[in-house]
Amino acid sequence: MRILVLGGDGFCGWPAALHLSQLGHDVGIVDNLSRRRIDEELGTDSLTPIRTPQERLAAWTDATGRTIDFHEVDIAQDYEGFVALLSQTRPEVVVHFAEQRAAPYSMKSPTHKRYTIDNNVNATHNVLSAIVESDLDVHLVHLGTMGVYGYGTAGMRIPEGYLDVKVPGEDPDGNATGELLDQTMLYPTNPGSIYHMTKVLDQHLFAFYAKNDKLRITDLHQGIIWGTHTEETQLDERLINRFDYDGDYGTVLNRFLMQAAVGYPLTVHGTGGQTRAFIHIQDMVRCIAIAVDNPPAGGEKVKIFNQMTETHRVRDLAELICEISGASLELVPNPRQESAENDLYASNRTFLDLGLEPTTLSSGLLQEVEETARRYADRADQSKIPATSLWTEAQAVGAPTRIAETA
Amino acid sequence: MRILVLGGDGFCGWPAALHLSQLGHDVGIVDNLSRRRIDEELGTDSLTPIRTPQERLAAWTDATGRTIDFHEVDIAQDYEGFVALLSQTRPEVVVHFAEQRAAPYSMKSPTHKRYTIDNNVNATHNVLSAIVESDLDVHLVHLGTMGVYGYGTAGMRIPEGYLDVKVPGEDPDGNATGELLDQTMLYPTNPGSIYHMTKVLDQHLFAFYAKNDKLRITDLHQGIIWGTHTEETQLDERLINRFDYDGDYGTVLNRFLMQAAVGYPLTVHGTGGQTRAFIHIQDMVRCIAIAVDNPPAGGEKVKIFNQMTETHRVRDLAELICEISGASLELVPNPRQESAENDLYASNRTFLDLGLEPTTLSSGLLQEVEETARRYADRADQSKIPATSLWTEAQAVGAPTRIAETA
Ligand SMILES: NC(=O)c1ccc[n+]([C@@H]2O[C@H](COP(=O)([O-])OP(=O)(O)OC[C@H]3O[C@@H](n4cnc5c(N)ncnc54)[C@H](O)[C@@H]3O)[C@@H](O)[C@H]2O)c1
Ligand SMILES: NC(=O)c1ccc[n+]([C@@H]2O[C@H](COP(=O)([O-])OP(=O)(O)OC[C@H]3O[C@@H](n4cnc5c(N)ncnc54)[C@H](O)[C@@H]3O)[C@@H](O)[C@H]2O)c1
Repeated sequence: MRILVLGGDGFCGWPAALHLSQLGHDVGIVDNLSRRRIDEELGTDSLTPIRTPQERLAAWTDATGRTIDFHEVDIAQDYEGFVALLSQTRPEVVVHFAEQRAAPYSMKSPTHKRYTIDNNVNATHNVLSAIVESDLDVHLVHLGTMGVYGYGTAGMRIPEGYLDVKVPGEDPDGNATGELLDQTMLYPTNPGSIYHMTKVLDQHLFAFYAKNDKLRITDLHQGIIWGTHTEETQLDERLINRFDYDGDYGTVLNRFLMQAAVGYPLTVHGTGGQTRAFIHIQDMVRCIAIAVDNPPAGGEKVKIFNQMTETHRVRDLAELICEISGASLELVPNPRQESAENDLYASNRTFLDLGLEPTTLSSGLLQEVEETARRYADRADQSKIPATSLWTEAQAVGAPTRIAETA
Repeated sequence: MRILVLGGDGFCGWPAALHLSQLGHDVGIVDNLSRRRIDEELGTDSLTPIRTPQERLAAWTDATGRTIDFHEVDIAQDYEGFVALLSQTRPEVVVHFAEQRAAPYSMKSPTHKRYTIDNNVNATHNVLSAIVESDLDVHLVHLGTMGVYGYGTAGMRIPEGYLDVKVPGEDPDGNATGELLDQTMLYPTNPGSIYHMTKVLDQHLFAFYAKNDKLRITDLHQGIIWGTHTEETQLDERLINRFDYDGDYGTVLNRFLMQAAVGYPLTVHGTGGQTRAFIHIQDMVRCIAIAVDNPPAGGEKVKIFNQMTETHRVRDLAELICEISGASLELVPNPRQESAENDLYASNRTFLDLGLEPTTLSSGLLQEVEETARRYADRADQSKIPATSLWTEAQAVGAPTRIAETA
């Protein structure tokens, strides 16, 4: 199939593009390289030595004989350019990773909040509007987040996107009828940051375009990715994927791995009692391929899958890594506005039923510590590890916290 | 109180600003005059001869001795300018009317869809971010729409913003526990246009800022406004309010009045079976004043009131006006994607309990036909009455419809 991967230069988009190309799809990458510019803004860099898009793509052709096109387009700002690209490439599938995705970065300052809203909402809406305008029968696969669900609800499991409820009936004057009416609705959201909120807004944009224009849309509510390598990125060192360990973009598990590798104590927020959903990067690329192979029919509501394989309490993860690596653990104040402890039970039936065989933390962690964190530890700038983004002005009064988890 | 009225040059904002000024508040208007430029773009004009902001404001001082400041700022584009204005004027209340508000205009073309999303989302988010950044304890009053609820649900009354439901309990493995858990959530939305969808997105922005930053926010889910004059706009003809009758901005009742006045048949969509919620413009300004006087406490969730006083089926309205005016009625295809017939029962307890005494359609309609529609009928350009905005490409194949209702 002809597939455009938006955000295909990023942490998820790059290995996903390679995997889809390896499976024989005709893949093009669209990216405005904003993530690389944000590294410059923050004075950070990937722990792993990622190459320029041109070098990466040449290496892919060297390694496999396959080619992937690269299009430098800002999908939030250059609508006309994106419409022209659609008409020219006529994709059957568009996989949309192209958003600002770090929660701490989205809370850093008014400028960062506004950039995240503006970039993410306009990117997603431009993609939808352009598909309608192009009149192509595109299947849009979007990367959402488990974070839209908030942090779990006592006594129930988080379903895949939609919630079945019973609504107490009322007559026109507002008197209870005693009836309980069945209704299905988007799961009510409780986003923990501006970044997460943009994914809530995306959901509503999708629901509207699926209804009004009969667009075929799959929204993947993804857990926190861990790991760096996939089968394809390991074919040549020039194909290596990015590994973020800084306080803004480093996701919790990858930061723990890096801290362990450089002998920095693993810093856990509050009691570390927050439960999060995880998925290995190799499973993520497989899920994308499965989603591409299982599009919704036209005129259906948006298909929503939970793309995660395990849930863990943050302090359990930290302890696991301390055990493997001999690192120590330190508790620091939480920069986020959230409950100290939460449970999280979520359904991920769809991907399991479609054949996903999860890589478990217990099997993959040690390899990751050795092959990535220790191997590139000399490239680490330890001063970039602390989390400096706070959720509210009020928190600025307290001591600066060292680490924020990123989902 | 010091009050900034964003969008204070518009159909609702202008009479609201005058009313708040008349009540003794210290009022400033912020507007980028985009609505006047859209009239130029569409080749339309208000039926009533509205004056420039400067003339209007001078007339207000002549008539009452009171002054209202005017600030030409684009709140979606000029964030820094808006922050500076907040710090300089230090308002206690901000009333936010400043969005693109016509459903048909928002569906006209990809450019109009994208403008509506970009303008409305960034306007609302900038206001929220600027309030946090300014560190002022502002009460934000926002104009939302009854349209976020979709078009009603059989067997229940639409509550004010939040829905109480029962969720079937599940154990961590997804087996039913038989328990029914109580939950309160934002009423699930089903917006009928890109414009309405921006109000859905606004709701989520408000919920986040109320939670994360403890902002005090009231969101008024307003019905379709009818009527033109308020006590204050009638003090001097130079204070006259705008009256839109074109296919994009003319709201259903005002367009019917104009059609009746110029002897054009009242064009009703489909069977005219859609039920809509209405409120007279005089009641709207009173509701704003009531909302200003009843702010939520900090740290509370967003206060949501339904700002409407009557619901009517569109064909019943048309028949009522035909009766009053002797006009005839014509059924035309519906340009919208919606069910042909719907019921709509909604609660509006809060405003009634706070003392609102509604102006009823039966008492105000005749006056409106005579004092506005007939009086300025010679200014009407009948070629602008037809609705030309279609909801989907597919509809372009059918005959062009003449009138779209605007909410
Ligand atoms: N990494 C995770 O743990 C995780 C978890 C859940 C969901 N996700 C979602 O997956 C997607 C990809 O995440 P990631 O970790 O690969 O992030 P990333 O920042 O590494 O990649 C995003 C890519 O999109 C590009 N981009 C951003 N805005 C763009 C625009 N306007 N036009 C063109 N390109 C643009 C960036 O340059 C970058 O290459 C995101 O939408 C994210 O929300 C990621
Ligand atoms: N008119 C109705 O029947 C109705 C019904 C329900 C809700 N509402 C809501 O009430 C509000 C006001 O509606 P209206 O009928 O007065 O619309 P209007 O178009 O007459 O007024 C809106 C005003 O906001 C200004 N504006 C728009 N974007 C701006 C920006 N970025 N910066 C500064 N100013 C900007 C416009 O110039 C205009 O003067 C809207 O939010 C609308 O959604 C109206």
